Amino acid sequence: MTAKPNILFIMADQLRADYLACNGHPSIRTPHIDALAARGINFTRAYCQAPVCGPSRMSFYTGRYAASHGASYNNVPLRVDERTLGDHLRPHGYRVALVGKTHMKRDDEGMAHLGISPDSSRGVLVSQCGFEPFERDDGLHPDQSADPDLRYNQYLRCQGYDSRNPWHDYANSAEDDDGNILSGWHMRHCHRPIRVREEHSETAYTTNRAMDFIDEAGDTPWCLHLSYIKPHWPYMAPAPYHNMYGQEDIPHAIRSEQERVAPHPVVDAFMQHSESREFARDEVRQRVIPTYMGLITQLDDHIGRLMGFLEERGQLDNTLIVVTSDHGDYLGDHWLGEKELFHESSARIPMIVVDPRHEADATRGTRDERLVEAIDLVPTFIDAASGNSKALDHRLEGRSLQPVVNGQSGEWRTHAFSESDYAWRPARLALQLPPDQAKAYMVTDGRWKYIHYEQHRPQLFDLQNDPEELHDLVPDKAHDEVCRRMEATLYDWCRERKLRVTVSNQRIESNTDTAHQRGYLFGIW
Amino acid sequence: MTAKPNILFIMADQLRADYLACNGHPSIRTPHIDALAARGINFTRAYCQAPVCGPSRMSFYTGRYAASHGASYNNVPLRVDERTLGDHLRPHGYRVALVGKTHMKRDDEGMAHLGISPDSSRGVLVSQCGFEPFERDDGLHPDQSADPDLRYNQYLRCQGYDSRNPWHDYANSAEDDDGNILSGWHMRHCHRPIRVREEHSETAYTTNRAMDFIDEAGDTPWCLHLSYIKPHWPYMAPAPYHNMYGQEDIPHAIRSEQERVAPHPVVDAFMQHSESREFARDEVRQRVIPTYMGLITQLDDHIGRLMGFLEERGQLDNTLIVVTSDHGDYLGDHWLGEKELFHESSARIPMIVVDPRHEADATRGTRDERLVEAIDLVPTFIDAASGNSKALDHRLEGRSLQPVVNGQSGEWRTHAFSESDYAWRPARLALQLPPDQAKAYMVTDGRWKYIHYEQHRPQLFDLQNDPEELHDLVPDKAHDEVCRRMEATLYDWCRERKLRVTVSNQRIESNTDTAHQRGYLFGIW
Repeated sequence: MTAKPNILFIMADQLRADYLACNGHPSIRTPHIDALAARGINFTRAYCQAPVCGPSRMSFYTGRYAASHGASYNNVPLRVDERTLGDHLRPHGYRVALVGKTHMKRDDEGMAHLGISPDSSRGVLVSQCGFEPFERDDGLHPDQSADPDLRYNQYLRCQGYDSRNPWHDYANSAEDDDGNILSGWHMRHCHRPIRVREEHSETAYTTNRAMDFIDEAGDTPWCLHLSYIKPHWPYMAPAPYHNMYGQEDIPHAIRSEQERVAPHPVVDAFMQHSESREFARDEVRQRVIPTYMGLITQLDDHIGRLMGFLEERGQLDNTLIVVTSDHGDYLGDHWLGEKELFHESSARIPMIVVDPRHEADATRGTRDERLVEAIDLVPTFIDAASGNSKALDHRLEGRSLQPVVNGQSGEWRTHAFSESDYAWRPARLALQLPPDQAKAYMVTDGRWKYIHYEQHRPQLFDLQNDPEELHDLVPDKAHDEVCRRMEATLYDWCRERKLRVTVSNQRIESNTDTAHQRGYLFGIW
Repeated sequence: MTAKPNILFIMADQLRADYLACNGHPSIRTPHIDALAARGINFTRAYCQAPVCGPSRMSFYTGRYAASHGASYNNVPLRVDERTLGDHLRPHGYRVALVGKTHMKRDDEGMAHLGISPDSSRGVLVSQCGFEPFERDDGLHPDQSADPDLRYNQYLRCQGYDSRNPWHDYANSAEDDDGNILSGWHMRHCHRPIRVREEHSETAYTTNRAMDFIDEAGDTPWCLHLSYIKPHWPYMAPAPYHNMYGQEDIPHAIRSEQERVAPHPVVDAFMQHSESREFARDEVRQRVIPTYMGLITQLDDHIGRLMGFLEERGQLDNTLIVVTSDHGDYLGDHWLGEKELFHESSARIPMIVVDPRHEADATRGTRDERLVEAIDLVPTFIDAASGNSKALDHRLEGRSLQPVVNGQSGEWRTHAFSESDYAWRPARLALQLPPDQAKAYMVTDGRWKYIHYEQHRPQLFDLQNDPEELHDLVPDKAHDEVCRRMEATLYDWCRERKLRVTVSNQRIESNTDTAHQRGYLFGIW
């Protein structure tokens, strides 16, 4: 292990924490990810900072809460002067690249305002949230906006899949018995295999491209964000993963009839979304979840392939590996589909950290229940790269996991937070809220989970006695003291956001009380 | 009056709201400012967003609270992608210029990071918070960092004041009877006249430069930020203003012995600062305040001169005029010097708005007690320039004063806010706080003023029954319900900060629930 380990930052999209065998799933097969957990530390209480792709990822990449970086929903551009993982690691000699998805939206207006050309090298980095876009592919290409020259589309065409948008027509579509094309956008089709061979599927291709990057990087220290689109919808898998699991493999839906009787108004509004209404139906769960699981096992197989590749090249012992996801997937739990709210199915994420260095031996193969947040990765990576994340504590809101990974005791955070901005969703219209009031905040101390909704009453769940979060404790008013405490914690958190980003705390320390020294002699007789 | 009135945005530095005759000062002479109040509307409950130059001004220029723009103290650079008055008015055809002080600190690191050259035209605007620096002069030039080529220094030299730093040696120094130079940095000298003739003093020079700009601008609509350094320290005035007022003209110090008996810990720490210890002494007040008043009357005279100039050029009826300041000056009130805390002496500011248009006739010559904030000026100016400040309500946190000026009724804000970040001050060290915990927040509803200090108990004052703020009501616990309400208001305010700045609310409205339309067919069977 050199002083500058490589960093392999693997993200799956919409992968629930509990859909891994090592996290207790009763039927799924994820032997390679399980092996990583056995080689590293498995954080079982990790939360994303926003249970939706864009803001969650911007938090992963900036090390800052969504309230701080401001890109609070998909397609909200990240401010041009936010700093990202690439900005932090590049000065330490790292090549910091992306293969796959980021859901970064470029701030065109901000760039134009500052005269930054999107084509300049700086402009490209600003546009790609600091990553060198070795292969950027956000993985969702409706015909309306599909780029026929998307590299994966070109690749598929080279393999003989002829179409303007083979991503859709082949890699995310199936065929009926008469050869008619069945779009993967429709969940009723997702028990059928896609029209490309497994080795040409997105997960396989993305893994290949990661290998290309690693080969190209050679001896330069690298940080690769390998960011798979699957198991995100379209829920379509190649053979043999499309029917690897059956209905007997599906866990029961985490929901109760009571949840529909007197739902919280915001949750109720989400229950009316089409994705929720569909996933509330058993037929949909039975059609989708086996494929969702197959996509995860496929992903696992390719992670295994990638591990073999790293081992072959002698890099396995020199690479810090993280496996995580940007958020979960309700899959019908709580009568909801998709994500965006804060039940464990949606807000909790897998977080496995494999640090091959000797110092981490103490925690190898352990599970850790401490509260971990997505924003912890940036400081962790900075420290791994021999940087000093502490010196950036005027910007970074996460905590380096290094001491935890190294088995050092010490105080740790007491609460984790997540945020939702649902201004773009029908729920906002149903609730008749203006765009800046469609917000919600989650705070948990591990035992209690409290959710503050703007304009509506909060929710409280007891994760110890009600781990399935079926009983909202707010209406019975028996836990008002807990609610008050959690609300106070959230208030403290609001005031602690790091928005004074242009000057470091170190510099403040060294400049405190120096005005007189600098000749500004005020208050002198 | 054309559709595009000129905007004359006059700021004095450290001018207390109550040191104007039109605001009730018993002895000061400010006839020209009084005349403006008689021609316009005088807001008697206006607050700065931070009672210290830098952050207050950044709020004035961005229309955003200090918590939002992040430049929370002097010399904290404003983020390069914040938008300022110039950015907002220039698209409407305005020339937006600065004559005088901004206390803007350039974000060198941010500019370098984005490859913006400070010498480029964009770089200059980013460096000068969006103003064309027709004449920038922050007005404080200790020998340690004085620029001999400062334009005012050159000017003074041309007038025969020979020195490397004539700003200090002549314009802010006096002489004793033997001709020895007495530095204006020392308050003991401030009863003596400065060593330049009145017409060469800073206030006169700054006014001249404003006239130069107005002449140069010609028929182009302009917004001039005329930003005087005085009556800010060094408290040094030219003859005859240096001894125009005597001890009999000084208002009594607003303070009580009780305030020193059991002070709030943070206030106590500020009381130990040298400026507070000095201003607690009657000798200091008696020496400084007559000169402070003389500087204000001098300023008033030059504002009169400028009004004459505008009238002569036929521009008086075509120019929206604002007179305000960035914060007050304790001058020994509450046993404090300088500013930074939230008593009326420090946080309240003059705010006179003269709108020559017919629509404003209804309020001409009136006093208005509604709560006004510094951040209200940017939207007011945008609307005056035929812009639409509402369309910028994802960034702007102030409210356009236009409807109030036009005498329209309607709901108005219920609370005003101000913030303090005293990380750089000795008080932080005395209180043993880390740099990010030296923060305080003021909220007032006009009747009550509540102050939240991080790590210390709050304060509460009853502005109706105790307008001098001598009795902190928190220790006696008789007003816990008021405190709870104010704290809840502050919590709401924290969550309402506008940090999702890269997308407008209008765009959110038009993009709500459009994913399916754009081909992202999730949740479809």
